[in-house]
Amino acid sequence: MWKHKDLLGIKELTKDELLELMTLAQDMKKRLLNRQIQEHLFYGNMTTLFYENSTRTKHSFTVAGQNVGLMVSDLGLSTSSIKKGESLYDTALTIDQMGTDIIVMRHSSSGAAHYVAENVNASVINAGDGTNEHPTQALLDCMTIMEEKGDFEGLKVCIAGDIINSRVARSNIYALNKLGAKVTLTGPTTLVPKGMASLGAEVNYNIKDAVKDADVVMGLRIQLERQKSGAFPDLREYGNLFGINEEIFAYAKPDAIIMHPGPVNRNVELTSELIDAPYSTINDQVTNGVAIRMAILTKLMEARKQGTSKDIRRII
Amino acid sequence: MWKHKDLLGIKELTKDELLELMTLAQDMKKRLLNRQIQEHLFYGNMTTLFYENSTRTKHSFTVAGQNVGLMVSDLGLSTSSIKKGESLYDTALTIDQMGTDIIVMRHSSSGAAHYVAENVNASVINAGDGTNEHPTQALLDCMTIMEEKGDFEGLKVCIAGDIINSRVARSNIYALNKLGAKVTLTGPTTLVPKGMASLGAEVNYNIKDAVKDADVVMGLRIQLERQKSGAFPDLREYGNLFGINEEIFAYAKPDAIIMHPGPVNRNVELTSELIDAPYSTINDQVTNGVAIRMAILTKLMEARKQGTSKDIRRII
Amino acid sequence: MWKHKDLLGIKELTKDELLELMTLAQDMKKRLLNRQIQEHLFYGNMTTLFYENSTRTKHSFTVAGQNVGLMVSDLGLSTSSIKKGESLYDTALTIDQMGTDIIVMRHSSSGAAHYVAENVNASVINAGDGTNEHPTQALLDCMTIMEEKGDFEGLKVCIAGDIINSRVARSNIYALNKLGAKVTLTGPTTLVPKGMASLGAEVNYNIKDAVKDADVVMGLRIQLERQKSGAFPDLREYGNLFGINEEIFAYAKPDAIIMHPGPVNRNVELTSELIDAPYSTINDQVTNGVAIRMAILTKLMEARKQGTSKDIRRII
Repeated sequence: MWKHKDLLGIKELTKDELLELMTLAQDMKKRLLNRQIQEHLFYGNMTTLFYENSTRTKHSFTVAGQNVGLMVSDLGLSTSSIKKGESLYDTALTIDQMGTDIIVMRHSSSGAAHYVAENVNASVINAGDGTNEHPTQALLDCMTIMEEKGDFEGLKVCIAGDIINSRVARSNIYALNKLGAKVTLTGPTTLVPKGMASLGAEVNYNIKDAVKDADVVMGLRIQLERQKSGAFPDLREYGNLFGINEEIFAYAKPDAIIMHPGPVNRNVELTSELIDAPYSTINDQVTNGVAIRMAILTKLMEARKQGTSKDIRRII
Repeated sequence: MWKHKDLLGIKELTKDELLELMTLAQDMKKRLLNRQIQEHLFYGNMTTLFYENSTRTKHSFTVAGQNVGLMVSDLGLSTSSIKKGESLYDTALTIDQMGTDIIVMRHSSSGAAHYVAENVNASVINAGDGTNEHPTQALLDCMTIMEEKGDFEGLKVCIAGDIINSRVARSNIYALNKLGAKVTLTGPTTLVPKGMASLGAEVNYNIKDAVKDADVVMGLRIQLERQKSGAFPDLREYGNLFGINEEIFAYAKPDAIIMHPGPVNRNVELTSELIDAPYSTINDQVTNGVAIRMAILTKLMEARKQGTSKDIRRII
Repeated sequence: MWKHKDLLGIKELTKDELLELMTLAQDMKKRLLNRQIQEHLFYGNMTTLFYENSTRTKHSFTVAGQNVGLMVSDLGLSTSSIKKGESLYDTALTIDQMGTDIIVMRHSSSGAAHYVAENVNASVINAGDGTNEHPTQALLDCMTIMEEKGDFEGLKVCIAGDIINSRVARSNIYALNKLGAKVTLTGPTTLVPKGMASLGAEVNYNIKDAVKDADVVMGLRIQLERQKSGAFPDLREYGNLFGINEEIFAYAKPDAIIMHPGPVNRNVELTSELIDAPYSTINDQVTNGVAIRMAILTKLMEARKQGTSKDIRRII
């Protein structure tokens, strides 16, 4: 029985809950691939509220919501009163008062989703908050690893790139640790400060050592838009100095896979050869993203319907 | 039996029709709050056509349309040919020819909704036309007053703020007069010219006198974007000189409620204390907005289906 | 049995296939006009991917998709990662991996839809690619002619205006030739170079001769945005020198019809009198647009479901 009103971060989930979501997502994926999307499963409203631009995540949630029967709407921020300066609190409360069941939100401030979740009756799904967490991305990544490797125990996962700015990295570190894998971080010192080891990972600036014997090598998008102008490295420098190519990937285990949350800067984080290689799971990650979001929506809607999530109050 | 093809303004509705819509909206609200949104009630298309930005109203209509089973689409004006200079007439006719049942529209010109309604087969709902009317806002406001006060007869409603630019004020004055309440307007002389009394309201520039013994105090958003630059007052001045605070609100009846159509400029029209007070109905107004729009859509769709609205022609 | 995975251009379709789509569209139009939109016919996802702005075409596809039961979503390009420079290939592959059944796309590059179609499992509908084709527009135009004239054999269709930049002109020439009609092109030499005769049409710069004895006169939108600045003619010059007015239209057959894909620049390509005349089919074209798109979606979805389109692979 699912107990959470919201899905805010990996930190809030137990290992069993992570596995429960990934297992349900496997079923959802079968339905998705066999186009066995059935008639409305749930009758409810879902609203997407994205304060940061997004293609993949927002679209993936939209399709997932539709696939489980929800009536999906977007609070289009570019044409909204938010330009007029309405606060996050007032905007969220307004959506909530309209009776929506699910709010999927992304915000540039760490903790924004938690703040909203405490103030609304709707179930809040964190689609990224500042540099804190992006839990559905970590879940889809772990689901992909589970498909490829079966088990997490003792796996070595190397994450390379812009770790300091990355909520994807943080959520993946939390999830992989809970599931029994070991994480090694690598990249330029500006993007992977030593202190990041405290998140529960090894930091190794020698990229070949970091990749050595890895079961999984995951490149992360260089978030140029998050870096100060003039920062080192620029995209071309990054590709030359820290990008993963076939020579470096050869240090990983023979059956290693290559991952990336997308969108990839081709020949920056990863070479095009690696992106399109048979051991690349980048496309699977996209499909798994819809599946895991269908699973999460199913769990949250079931909990709302059955009243098992203790913290759902009624609007009035 | 509902007789109108369109919902254009409060002016066109009788007291009985206002009450009929509010009574149906009460049922809709119960369904909304109990999440008894059932399978498709109507099979039809609804298109939103907003020439002015909006969060609340457009989103509220979208959710309401989905809740009664309509297939909702938005003619996204920011990415449309309207930038290429297509006229309102041609745009509306195009939507109509696509077979849509409902057009929900907002336009900066007074009379725009009436003009479109005369030229299309679709049922047009006026979501705000210039400074003329915003009938669904007035209906949701009156529904909220009815919930709190039971009856309108003899109520004193004080509306404070930017009256001259406000279609919300006009629609509320028309509705409250029809329902038997008395309206007092207050605010700076620049925003509440004496002549506005001709709409059917008392004008009183002494805010304490205006609020005295009121059953309902309604703040209206200062539409800075509608004022000429350099106009008096600016937001800060307005808050200091004309904003409603607890001291002023104390002049109202002991059981008075405080209302605002949102989004509120906190500590400008109303202090934060009043906004978040237990006698504030601002959140209820949002929920009632979805309910009243579900009721209106239901009435219009029923009239279309049963052919009771005499002015619906067929497309061919 | 429909054999195509995609609908990319008129060039790829036989005369029989054109007729099959138009005949099914007649049924769809009856359902549309009688509001017999039934419960979900198909359970599938459709995504619109428009790299060029559009009102009519995108909205028409959205409504058509909803009407045949599809769950429609838009990859909002103005708020997407595409601004971050993601390639068409990577974007299309991402949508495809989400399990969508139908991708409706418009792109400024000729051949873009073919390129995507070769790389995705989804069925791709070309909603306009550069100056190459706009097949659904030609199909709705031909459907309108069929309604008015019954048969295409021996019909004279005069197309006037910006032919060189027009994918609508090209698709119509291909379709009308396959169906047995004869096409005459007219307009300024800058917009109708002589070489365009090679597409399968007569070129005649004397507009009265071109219109003489025509069964159908079709004005095309002057795509000012596609012309270099300072190009001849500008809109006012065009109206004066090459626009079609009643005097010119009088050269056509007595029962001739006037067509335009819209949006029309009033008194430029056509005078307002012609646009609003009883023999104008401009509004019918809009309705037929929804109907033909419902027919195309039906054929493609049936082919996907029954596996008759040989080139549909599974995602995994």
